[in-house]
Amino acid sequence: MADVSRELAHHLDARDPLAAVKDRFTLPDKVIYLDGNSLGALPAGVPDAVDDAVRRQWGGDLITSWNGNGWWTLPGRVGDRIGRLVGAAPGQVMCGDSTSVQLFQALVALARLRPNRHTLITDGGGFPTDQYLAESVARMLDLRLLRISPDALDTVIGDDTAVVAIGGVDYRTGELWDAPELTSLIHRHGALALWDLAHVAGVAPFDLDGIGADAAVGCSYKYLNGGPGAPAWIYLPTRHQNAADLPLTGWHGHATPFDLDDSFTPAVGIERARIGTPHVLSMLALEAALDVFDGVDMVDVRAKSLQLTQFAIDYVDAFLPDVEVVTPRQDARRGGQIALRHREAYAIVQALIARGVIGDFRAPDLVRLGFAPLYLGFADVWDAFEHLRDVIESGAYRDPAFATRRTVT
Amino acid sequence: MADVSRELAHHLDARDPLAAVKDRFTLPDKVIYLDGNSLGALPAGVPDAVDDAVRRQWGGDLITSWNGNGWWTLPGRVGDRIGRLVGAAPGQVMCGDSTSVQLFQALVALARLRPNRHTLITDGGGFPTDQYLAESVARMLDLRLLRISPDALDTVIGDDTAVVAIGGVDYRTGELWDAPELTSLIHRHGALALWDLAHVAGVAPFDLDGIGADAAVGCSYKYLNGGPGAPAWIYLPTRHQNAADLPLTGWHGHATPFDLDDSFTPAVGIERARIGTPHVLSMLALEAALDVFDGVDMVDVRAKSLQLTQFAIDYVDAFLPDVEVVTPRQDARRGGQIALRHREAYAIVQALIARGVIGDFRAPDLVRLGFAPLYLGFADVWDAFEHLRDVIESGAYRDPAFATRRTVT
Repeated sequence: MADVSRELAHHLDARDPLAAVKDRFTLPDKVIYLDGNSLGALPAGVPDAVDDAVRRQWGGDLITSWNGNGWWTLPGRVGDRIGRLVGAAPGQVMCGDSTSVQLFQALVALARLRPNRHTLITDGGGFPTDQYLAESVARMLDLRLLRISPDALDTVIGDDTAVVAIGGVDYRTGELWDAPELTSLIHRHGALALWDLAHVAGVAPFDLDGIGADAAVGCSYKYLNGGPGAPAWIYLPTRHQNAADLPLTGWHGHATPFDLDDSFTPAVGIERARIGTPHVLSMLALEAALDVFDGVDMVDVRAKSLQLTQFAIDYVDAFLPDVEVVTPRQDARRGGQIALRHREAYAIVQALIARGVIGDFRAPDLVRLGFAPLYLGFADVWDAFEHLRDVIESGAYRDPAFATRRTVT
Repeated sequence: MADVSRELAHHLDARDPLAAVKDRFTLPDKVIYLDGNSLGALPAGVPDAVDDAVRRQWGGDLITSWNGNGWWTLPGRVGDRIGRLVGAAPGQVMCGDSTSVQLFQALVALARLRPNRHTLITDGGGFPTDQYLAESVARMLDLRLLRISPDALDTVIGDDTAVVAIGGVDYRTGELWDAPELTSLIHRHGALALWDLAHVAGVAPFDLDGIGADAAVGCSYKYLNGGPGAPAWIYLPTRHQNAADLPLTGWHGHATPFDLDDSFTPAVGIERARIGTPHVLSMLALEAALDVFDGVDMVDVRAKSLQLTQFAIDYVDAFLPDVEVVTPRQDARRGGQIALRHREAYAIVQALIARGVIGDFRAPDLVRLGFAPLYLGFADVWDAFEHLRDVIESGAYRDPAFATRRTVT
């Protein structure tokens, strides 16, 4: 059994090369936040940046801000900064809209690149929105939809497969898929690979260009800390851009938007992935939030992420024998979160929140805990798991106050 | 010739029942803002509301804000407040995403309600994004696309027409269409009517429920003053909601989103018009911005709007004989803006901006000036037009500095 103790936690914190990055965030007192995989914490520079956006740029400069304060170039600027974190060279990522909308764009565009194939494959354990948009696109384009776990992809992929869409990390279990190998498998069959990196971007390195991904999407409110409902993003590699036939033909994606032509001519390059007017205030918050990654190497982030989740797994093994660790134990297959199975998972999560340990519940029986390496320390994890142990051993979760389901957890 | 003078302006300002509403805005000094039809001014309550959203709700309450600070119910709440301004009873408007995205949703949903008809008609003078999305939807659903000016709709509409999409006010000329009459014409042919109210909401009353509109969309950054890229909205009347088959099947529109089902089952009612995670910061800014309409009657807004634009037209008639007023002179056909034709329109707009009079240019030869009744007074209009007259009479617009086109005006 692995050694796990408060002393070890302090030891690891003292040696943590990212420890000082925590100071780039504003965290509430008396909270241990294990839900950065759902909504990232507030970067310290964001409030002033947003206030400037509202008072000076909007209130003072008004419409002239589209040029004068760079609003027009904002989606591409932010896209490039996200691109750096997921292995995309500049000019291939556009920020905007929601992940659901970007999934629709990417699925349709990729399917149209394989017009003679009629099967769309989606990750059967993928996040609901990924599956729902795949259903909608399959119906609109008259494709057959198959759902399969990525580890069984080879059993269904074939020469009728147009597109395969996979989430980089399973949102429920925290399993990290082997993206290079899966992309290679998809390409061997002549199909195209779409990656949803919502649970990857900002916590694990990814090499979109290197593995030859055909498209990717992601949100920016989890490990990218862009704020609630921060705009999503889409990656289209240079080689596909000028053939990409995107269905949401908003005027910002036009080749010459200010000519106000009656017919749509897509812009050259990634600019065609713009849709309508971007949500500037939310996007400026995201732009400021990305400053926390300045000088941060994703290799260090990944190393700490694995140490944090390993520490948590070791704690469970040592002190919580009745709790099942659902997340893979191999480093190579583990994302930034840990899923623990317990039949009273819902009440346990509520009891933890009442103590200031914020995680979340995923139906039917998972406690899902996220470990954001930029602002979480090992002593935080120790303290959180001491609470978890106490909540379970004491039976505190049986309090009726923790049994009532709310709409959102 | 109508009497028009600085004295008349002061007289009208003194009798303006909405004069005090200007204090609900933060306006820059030494600027006369005639572009509220493009980006509305900053409501005074927004900066604090946004700061609270960022620091307390996001930074302090983190993920618990989805329940605790009402983020989950935000899109419907804001939708209802917008609905009041466009004649929609509660439960029929959902806020979110961009106008382009909402146009796609509405066009597809309405076309699917008329599966045996194969023609989509769009306003041939409509805003580009409206035409581009109509092109995309026609292609995806295999419909024939016709473009026609609304005043010639009767020459092309027929029993194959599924949907007719019209902008409430022509974005270029400022012409206000007769929505009751056009909707009635559309319904007589068994087709469905989609209204884009981007240039209507907040400046002119509209009676979506009363005229029996089948769907509507709009932005909220113009006369609704929601801020740059503020989220758009969609109206689906109660009678169509549970038959509305929307293509962007994001998980927020699911009947039971937190069950995380693999297959999409749309929510009952307007909730199905939700897509992905809403852009919360931008939407909270919009929610606060809508406070400026508290206690304001859209009848008063419309009356002042007509007075303001009439005053501007009278000025042109009196002092600018070489400028053509493109906007209709009849009150019933005039929206909240005035389009003036001059072959040097671009340079004139630039010269005005250099003097702090902000309007905009629309290719090829229009000076487009918006009159936001909530924060614009008659003396402002007088002063702005005195500048316009001087810029033209003095030839100041011929300065080479005003000739270079920028990306965004």
